[in-house]
Amino acid sequence: MATDDLKALIRPGQCSIGRTLDFVGDRWSLLILREASFYGVTRFEHLRTRLGISKAVLTERLDGLVAHGILDRVPYQQPGERARHEYRLTPAGADLFPVLVALLEWGDKYRNEGLAPVSLSHKGCGAAVSGGLTCASGHHVQQSEVQPEVGPGLMPEAERLRAAGGPGQRSAA
Amino acid sequence: MATDDLKALIRPGQCSIGRTLDFVGDRWSLLILREASFYGVTRFEHLRTRLGISKAVLTERLDGLVAHGILDRVPYQQPGERARHEYRLTPAGADLFPVLVALLEWGDKYRNEGLAPVSLSHKGCGAAVSGGLTCASGHHVQQSEVQPEVGPGLMPEAERLRAAGGPGQRSAA
Repeated sequence: MATDDLKALIRPGQCSIGRTLDFVGDRWSLLILREASFYGVTRFEHLRTRLGISKAVLTERLDGLVAHGILDRVPYQQPGERARHEYRLTPAGADLFPVLVALLEWGDKYRNEGLAPVSLSHKGCGAAVSGGLTCASGHHVQQSEVQPEVGPGLMPEAERLRAAGGPGQRSAA
Repeated sequence: MATDDLKALIRPGQCSIGRTLDFVGDRWSLLILREASFYGVTRFEHLRTRLGISKAVLTERLDGLVAHGILDRVPYQQPGERARHEYRLTPAGADLFPVLVALLEWGDKYRNEGLAPVSLSHKGCGAAVSGGLTCASGHHVQQSEVQPEVGPGLMPEAERLRAAGGPGQRSAA
């Protein structure tokens, strides 16, 4: 199916990119996730100081990330102090790590002249970790080599379109 | 070097993630890039209609993406109409594709119940394209298995720190 058909078929609210951006589509949320994912910074005051963010904005962003299952709010208490909370990555939050790495790699290349301030290694074997796209046959793939296609989530719509418009009409099961 | 040292060493403005988010850290910019990267939608009116975005906001975001070298503003003219512009991905813009794919894959998993509306294939060989992290030894890597370390861009600072604090003081070359 051509890109034009796919483009017509997908409803704006259905796109997985748009749906993800509903939850993390702002600078602060992604910086909060960077702090948790890269540096293990999970406490309100530490986040506030490191990010230079107002209490009100930080509270609002943390509440949103908790409400959407990206961070878990966990109580802790230090001796002689009142109970506080920290904000730990849920499995869904940890799965946003490739987004951060993709942002990191672009910034290394285009904003830090290829001199990465932070490099990533695999705890298991020590080898350098990177993102990027590969195909199931093992090729590294660039944007221009990628063909977006109707996926399983759009199959019913594609089937209805074919049934309605195709000369050899089939039942839209 | 432990994560704590790295965390203390890196200045907020130096982080490649933060620097990338300076340019694309908002929902609209990323949706504009989605349209250009996935669907080849590059004309003002098409973008406006598909995204349901106001003219003022779209103009502001496009100007920003052009100013930062992510889109190129290219004139075109259709017969009988005035000259207009379209907004094509620069090589730097195309290199943001892995960010979009990472957002897509997360949304497929967590917001579309694993039923991807759009799947990606490699034009060269037809195999499915995906993102994710791998290490140079070929392992697939999760967030918890990644160790952030001082990269080449932070070496001078790390060297100064060692020189200043280490018992066997070395010259900070």
